[in-house]
Amino acid sequence: MVKNCVLLAAVSLLSAIQQAYFALKVENARKKYKVIPPSVTGSPDFERIFHAQQNSVEFYPPFLVVLWSSGLFFNEEIASVIGLVYLFSRCMYFNGYAESTKRRLPGFRIGIAMLLILTSLSIGGIANSVSDKYFDFNLAKKMRKMFL
Amino acid sequence: MVKNCVLLAAVSLLSAIQQAYFALKVENARKKYKVIPPSVTGSPDFERIFHAQQNSVEFYPPFLVVLWSSGLFFNEEIASVIGLVYLFSRCMYFNGYAESTKRRLPGFRIGIAMLLILTSLSIGGIANSVSDKYFDFNLAKKMRKMFL
Amino acid sequence: MVKNCVLLAAVSLLSAIQQAYFALKVENARKKYKVIPPSVTGSPDFERIFHAQQNSVEFYPPFLVVLWSSGLFFNEEIASVIGLVYLFSRCMYFNGYAESTKRRLPGFRIGIAMLLILTSLSIGGIANSVSDKYFDFNLAKKMRKMFL
Repeated sequence: MVKNCVLLAAVSLLSAIQQAYFALKVENARKKYKVIPPSVTGSPDFERIFHAQQNSVEFYPPFLVVLWSSGLFFNEEIASVIGLVYLFSRCMYFNGYAESTKRRLPGFRIGIAMLLILTSLSIGGIANSVSDKYFDFNLAKKMRKMFL
Repeated sequence: MVKNCVLLAAVSLLSAIQQAYFALKVENARKKYKVIPPSVTGSPDFERIFHAQQNSVEFYPPFLVVLWSSGLFFNEEIASVIGLVYLFSRCMYFNGYAESTKRRLPGFRIGIAMLLILTSLSIGGIANSVSDKYFDFNLAKKMRKMFL
Repeated sequence: MVKNCVLLAAVSLLSAIQQAYFALKVENARKKYKVIPPSVTGSPDFERIFHAQQNSVEFYPPFLVVLWSSGLFFNEEIASVIGLVYLFSRCMYFNGYAESTKRRLPGFRIGIAMLLILTSLSIGGIANSVSDKYFDFNLAKKMRKMFL
């Protein structure tokens, strides 16, 4: 079973490294703009970077949930590729937000789109598995038979 | 194996959607109370909604851990039902907190109770699995034999 | 398969209880230093404890990811022991930070070291699994054959 989720684990690991990278950026911004912990205010430049990282922290667990549920119940390869695009969009968001409040938007929107796709795939995959397990009705198999 | 956790995945997916819903509520409150990002202060109404969402973000990963450990090591159906009650209690908490600081308490307390139950089931299930795997002693099986 | 991750689940459960413990400490500090929610400022003593807990919240999901990926793809027992050291280091960090900003550092550094080890083991284990699954090349097995 472990072999069936190695790509999901690889994307998850990459995303954990990305979280560490964002946290490191905040630490560097603290030094640059002289914001001494535990304070998180004082410089608008620091505040934007801090807020970008906070947002990434918030989005992280839901991302992992939709990545793994779409990967396990729909298709591992597809979920992993969309997950990679998501990670790239979060880099865009973070770097954009560090520049100005407005520039956070393109990366943010791509990220939301990827999350919506992963959520849709998860709903489809889980609904199919539930109906297969509890009602003995597997739509995906029926459709495959119909076309192949 | 994937089939043995489809209910847990369904509850997790629902919880991820709930997290997104709370984040959206904060965005709307930002507009309503004119709190421009990255600022998170200014209006007590906004601050309550923001704090409610922050609290939900904090509680989210531990919730997933106790949901899955009780579901995998104790009983999937029971864990999923308690998980659903937990998600409902978080909605109560969020909407209550948005109204006033005091009204956050009923939902909060139900949520804590559900987490305590899931934690207890996890401890029981994991302790039984550890003793079975490392000491070849499965209490759950012995008890079942005794009564059936 | 569930049996192959019971130690990881045990460490995860312990870490969830630790998160709850830190959150409780913040609640107590709120009462002690009379910081009424949703406010999170006012007393530097409270702010340090609050910041320590916020930091733990941020580190929690990436910790779970590297714990599980190193445990599933490298070695469960080794990952669990390093995970326990990490949890201990977070206690050191939290209690140190509650005393003074400077005293947070020893626990913080040990924690980072543990995360780096778990990340390295994950990268090794996942890389080996990917090369085994997609390129039919298992380095770990080859090395074991070479020496045994």
